[in-house]
Formats: sequence, C-alpha cells, structure tokens
Amino acid sequence: MSSTDSTPDRPFILICNDDGIDAPGIQALATALDGHGDLCVVAPEREQSAVGHAITVRDPVRAHRYEFEVPSGPIPAWAVSGTPADCIKLATHQLLDRRPDVVVSGINRGPNTAVNILYSGTVSAATEAAILGFDAVAVSLCSFTRDEYEAAGRFAEQIVDRVLAGGLPPGVLLNVNVPAYEKSEIKGIRVTRQARSRWEESFEARVDPFDRPYYWIAGKFVNLDDGDETDLEAIENGYVSVTPIQFDLTAYEHLKSIRDWQWNGEE
Amino acid sequence: MSSTDSTPDRPFILICNDDGIDAPGIQALATALDGHGDLCVVAPEREQSAVGHAITVRDPVRAHRYEFEVPSGPIPAWAVSGTPADCIKLATHQLLDRRPDVVVSGINRGPNTAVNILYSGTVSAATEAAILGFDAVAVSLCSFTRDEYEAAGRFAEQIVDRVLAGGLPPGVLLNVNVPAYEKSEIKGIRVTRQARSRWEESFEARVDPFDRPYYWIAGKFVNLDDGDETDLEAIENGYVSVTPIQFDLTAYEHLKSIRDWQWNGEE
Repeated sequence: MSSTDSTPDRPFILICNDDGIDAPGIQALATALDGHGDLCVVAPEREQSAVGHAITVRDPVRAHRYEFEVPSGPIPAWAVSGTPADCIKLATHQLLDRRPDVVVSGINRGPNTAVNILYSGTVSAATEAAILGFDAVAVSLCSFTRDEYEAAGRFAEQIVDRVLAGGLPPGVLLNVNVPAYEKSEIKGIRVTRQARSRWEESFEARVDPFDRPYYWIAGKFVNLDDGDETDLEAIENGYVSVTPIQFDLTAYEHLKSIRDWQWNGEE
Repeated sequence: MSSTDSTPDRPFILICNDDGIDAPGIQALATALDGHGDLCVVAPEREQSAVGHAITVRDPVRAHRYEFEVPSGPIPAWAVSGTPADCIKLATHQLLDRRPDVVVSGINRGPNTAVNILYSGTVSAATEAAILGFDAVAVSLCSFTRDEYEAAGRFAEQIVDRVLAGGLPPGVLLNVNVPAYEKSEIKGIRVTRQARSRWEESFEARVDPFDRPYYWIAGKFVNLDDGDETDLEAIENGYVSVTPIQFDLTAYEHLKSIRDWQWNGEE
C-alpha cells in the first residue's frame, strides 16, 4: 500500500507551513480541508519563520514519517529537517507518488502582507510550488497572539475549492491574509495588491558578559501606501485579503527607460 | 574620527555579498569600485548562499570590525553573523553614520539569472536596500569555477557610475550577471527580463551509518523560456545581462480576472 494511497478522482492537496508541523495553524488548515480531497502534510520539523525563499544546499535534508490526525482520521505526513521551500521540492520529487492538485501553505501565525511577503517562509513554500507548476495558496492569520484559526480555515476551504475548480493562471499564486476575528465578524473577501511598506529597524545594541556587543532587530512596520485596494487596507477594514502574486520579478514597466540608458555607447 | 569618516561630496558606496566577507568576489568588487566613491563593506562573516531573503529574528546579530584593503588603502568594514539582508539592515540603521548613495552586492560566485533570483542571498541584499529606499545593484559572475572577477568588476564600475549619475526608479533595483570571460570577449550589455525556468530536482537518497535515510538536493536547471530578451539568452550570447527587478510581487495583470471570481457571492 502506497504511503499516499488515495482515491484518484478526489483532488490531492499537499499542505505545508513555516511554523513547523506541530503548529496550531497547520492543524487548523488540515482540519478545515478535511473532506475536500486527499490530504498530505509535508512540513518543517521546526519553526522556520522569516527564512524567506531559503533552500538547503550545503547539508542533506532528512524526512521522517509523522502522525497527523484530522477529524476523518490519520493522513500521511512527513516532518522535514529543511526549509519550507525544501519541503515542497522534497515532497513533489521524492516523497509523494501523486502530483498535488493544489499546494496550501499555512495557516501562518501572523500576517504576510505588504513587504513581509518577501521574508515569509509560508509564502515561499507556495511560491516554490508555483515555480514547479502547481496551483498554490498561502494562508496567514493576521495576529501573533489570537489563535482564531477557525475562521481562517473556513476561508482557506472556500479559496482552495475555488482554485481546485478553476485553476490559477500560470506563474501566479494566491497570498491570503485573514483578520483575526470570528467568521461572522469578517466582512468578505477582497482581491488586493501588495502595499508599499518597509520595516524601520531600530536595533537594540547590548553587550554580552564578555564585553562583546550584539544587536537585536526591533523594527517598526511602516505602511508607505495611502492608495486603494492594498492588502493592508483590506485587513484594516475587516476583509480577507487575496493578493495574486508572481515570481517573475522583472520590472517590465521600466525596461524601456533603462534600455534608453544607452549602455554600450558609454564606455 | 568617525568609523565612516569620508568626503561628503564623494558618493558613499556600501558593499555587501552572500559568499562571505573573505570571498574573492567581494574583494574584486571593492577593488573595481576603488576611486568611485567612499567605500564601506558590511558582509556576512560566513558564506550565506541560497538563503534567499532570510532575516535573523530569533537570535541576536553580531558585527565586528574587519580589515579590508583596496588598492588605495584600507576601507571601513564589518563582518556580520547574520544573512545578507541582516547586513543591509544593520549597516544602514546601526553601523553607518552616513546614508549610502548606492548599495552594491556581489560579485557572486555563480549566476543569479532566471528563477535563481529568488534563492539568491546576493540579490536579497540589494532587494533589502531597495526596500529601504536606496539605489541598489546585485552583480554575479556566471561561473562557479572560473575566477574571472576582473571583467565583472569593470562592468560593475560602469553600471554603478551610471546609477550614481542618474538614479533608479523607486522600487526598482538592477540584477547584473556577467559572463565568465575576459572583458574583451564580452560583447556588451543587454537590458533583459527574468527567464521562465525551474530546477528539476532529483534528490539523491542515501542511508546514514545508523540506517536513517537522508537526501541530497541534486537538481538540474531547466530553461522553460524560448522568448527573446531574457537574462539567460544574453549570457548565452556573450552579453552582460542587466535585469531591472522589483519587490512588488503583485500579479497586476491578473487582478481583474481574479476579482471576477465573485468571491463574496459564492458562500
């Protein structure tokens, strides 16, 4: 019997995250998706927040079978020693004998809005899946303290079903952020763009017992975007934010102006 | 005397990388830029390849002064215990008392073309600089074995001077890849887009002396793009590739079609 024994006519859903396989968010996500397809979890064995799109190239990666239960029973699961992007690569090329119909990453503890998308391991798992040609969704809960994963799980269900029914354009994945409220308090879904923002760092300098300085990162998040239709605006107004994002980073609208620099005549 | 004592009317150039402060590529970059402004190096103390846009949030970061020489003499330098993105944050918010006019990251050992942009620590240092509002350039040499950093340094000079003279559009940085030839063999500069591509992973499964399996990532890079004007095409044809890239990941051209999914009527 295959480790991913399943019903071929049901969709196959691969679940990952960056908070680690024991985090409440991934349990809530798998529980929410129970009944929507054949589920499988391949997730980091330890927390991997803020790893961005790191991959493990200088060390080997390990994977071990893991017990993971959803309401309908146990599902196949592996805990991986690497990053979220490693999990997706290893799952789809080595561990699984069936191609996922969708890859869902989350539910992240804390928002992955605005520039935080770039630092997020949760988003990078979904991005890696999209690079490999799979439909992919990242889901984050906009709170570090309130464990309101249930509503986020309900929206994840709805969005994943919609992706399974219609598919996503090639090279595009969905970055979903859910306000930390009960579902009845959430006003609906808005399709948004990534807000312009940055972290204004204020490193806290300390001195260790051996008189050597060290620094803690202690930044303040700053929204630089007063325009409409951003992910931050949707969350602030009580909506779920769904941002279609891409991994082609080319600044197409500036190609022409930078070509006009006449590079080769200047030497 | 300030640690970044300098001539205010000369541009201030911050240099970073991901191969580590002792790598030949960063030495070649600083040597090439000697005379183009006041230089400063803030780079990881150890190799940080493939870290993507990781930042260090759970541990403190350390920085210690480092000896770094260019032909005109010593320049201020710090070795940092964190990632390339950490280096830029720490440099611009804590270590330096002057705002860089441009941040240059590299010269990376190996290409950062196509989808490799997403995994690259070298590019992430430049991206972090751009997020923080600085003009930024990432420079990579398209070889893992040939140490032809001199030509790459010459093109870095030319491109950095051009950026210092004219500036970059907000939110845009330049990702530069240089073929591993002598300068006379390189045909010129092309402004390009990021090629569609992926790594087709073939994990090599092994068993350790304790009978536990582990996996080495052993992927093959695949160019999926047969269109014109890509970074890969420029390199293959002997040109330097300059790709303007951005950190706004929104898939703008798909916003409308995904809005048309009529999310809020479906429940």
